[in-house]
Amino acid sequence: MGTIETMLRRHPRIDEHHLRDFAETLDALTSCAEVCSACADACLAEEQVAKLRTCISLNLDCAEVCGATARLLVRQTEMPGPVVHAQLHACVVACQACADECESHAGMHDHCRICAETCHRCQEQCNYLLGEISASGTAERVDPLESPPLS
Amino acid sequence: MGTIETMLRRHPRIDEHHLRDFAETLDALTSCAEVCSACADACLAEEQVAKLRTCISLNLDCAEVCGATARLLVRQTEMPGPVVHAQLHACVVACQACADECESHAGMHDHCRICAETCHRCQEQCNYLLGEISASGTAERVDPLESPPLS
Amino acid sequence: MGTIETMLRRHPRIDEHHLRDFAETLDALTSCAEVCSACADACLAEEQVAKLRTCISLNLDCAEVCGATARLLVRQTEMPGPVVHAQLHACVVACQACADECESHAGMHDHCRICAETCHRCQEQCNYLLGEISASGTAERVDPLESPPLS
Amino acid sequence: MGTIETMLRRHPRIDEHHLRDFAETLDALTSCAEVCSACADACLAEEQVAKLRTCISLNLDCAEVCGATARLLVRQTEMPGPVVHAQLHACVVACQACADECESHAGMHDHCRICAETCHRCQEQCNYLLGEISASGTAERVDPLESPPLS
Repeated sequence: MGTIETMLRRHPRIDEHHLRDFAETLDALTSCAEVCSACADACLAEEQVAKLRTCISLNLDCAEVCGATARLLVRQTEMPGPVVHAQLHACVVACQACADECESHAGMHDHCRICAETCHRCQEQCNYLLGEISASGTAERVDPLESPPLS
Repeated sequence: MGTIETMLRRHPRIDEHHLRDFAETLDALTSCAEVCSACADACLAEEQVAKLRTCISLNLDCAEVCGATARLLVRQTEMPGPVVHAQLHACVVACQACADECESHAGMHDHCRICAETCHRCQEQCNYLLGEISASGTAERVDPLESPPLS
Repeated sequence: MGTIETMLRRHPRIDEHHLRDFAETLDALTSCAEVCSACADACLAEEQVAKLRTCISLNLDCAEVCGATARLLVRQTEMPGPVVHAQLHACVVACQACADECESHAGMHDHCRICAETCHRCQEQCNYLLGEISASGTAERVDPLESPPLS
Repeated sequence: MGTIETMLRRHPRIDEHHLRDFAETLDALTSCAEVCSACADACLAEEQVAKLRTCISLNLDCAEVCGATARLLVRQTEMPGPVVHAQLHACVVACQACADECESHAGMHDHCRICAETCHRCQEQCNYLLGEISASGTAERVDPLESPPLS
């Protein structure tokens, strides 16, 4: 049992049901945020930095979104609502965009290969948690009026 | 013309078309993030803090989401894509949730009244920008498969 | 009177004495964080990005440090202590480093010139606030043992 | 070897010498940021929340400072300079303040006991890294003029 799971179990009004899913998603998010920041920095130091602009930008975006999602999730122990739901969705989109970009030159830069894998794992974990909290009705306050205007 | 607009105009590959909309949304987001953090701190100092738990939590969430959205937006000057779109949507949801909660006791705490108004302005601005970037097709890479699973 | 000052005045246990200084420093910090992020993005889009690596890195650092300092400051309305003091000091160092780097090529990139000016203003404001809270004894809990090991 | 260490080893211009110290400090910082956020949320849910105001505030500060320090550190792979030095120092101060407060009621709340321990570990790790980068001269650009005005 990792530190964050141990910690969440001490919360006075914890939802035991999703606790492990929350802890695992938190681990995936903080790892992904850190790896994306490191990938941005490594890309910036590469000789061909001029070809890695989009990658750096998406790395920074994904690091930002994963970090914010983690900081929200750690507070959603009692009852995940529409905010955490929409933020998890944004995180899935950010991980997908960053993984796609990193994968496209994973053969040239090992840091991009690792970053793509980490983003994929984080995306799967966020998607899984979205499914879990939707199925249990804890995010039931999301209604069609709040879905994105484009969909 | 505010500092951030002046700054964005110096970007070597700026999309002039949406520049003012971006600058105004950035101002709304940074103001909202700051006001929500201040409201959380003020609620925490109120005598009846025990009744303001949900408000503090939503304040902190909204501050987090607005801050992350601003940090993304400042990098989306060339071509806003699906990540900024999904994050703007999450921000609309966070502002709505925080405004609703603050409004419910706006009569008792003036900081909650101001926070509700600030969240509403930020939500409107984000919604407006979502409409603008959708209409111009700059966010066209968002497809139905990426919409939230619940909608 | 700006939004954040209006908001701080609604805090139930505000320290009236430093309120305006806090509000002005918060404005300088949020502006500096935003401008530094925008400068990093503009540098990344420049043709000679390979020569702007250090600038991008210091921009991102300064944006991060100013943002964190602002989020701390908004919560220090009652009694600024050693944490806010040390963080304000880190912010002065970050603004100095970023301003120095941006200034060195301010003639070539207008966004770097504006960024250098913004960092200088933020640094002065943080230094001023440090002096104010030190003089009033509100940060008196900082003792020599907590100063950096190198000094 | 953890993910972040694996990742840092792929950086094209890594300083091998301090790599493991950086990776271990990053792990301590991200863990501390997460645990402090969780402690703030747990304190807010406690019946006697009114007595935990200072703890919540210091938890949020420490989470913020540790998070910012980690995001800086991940970019300091080539040459740690005065900014990371000052930020590590601020982090030591924040961890100390949070640990002291949490320890004072560790007997009543197990989440505060775990948080105090986590802050202490993070503080030690930051202090150790400060010593390492000072000894190796990589932070040699810090000079007395940049030390805190109070010391």
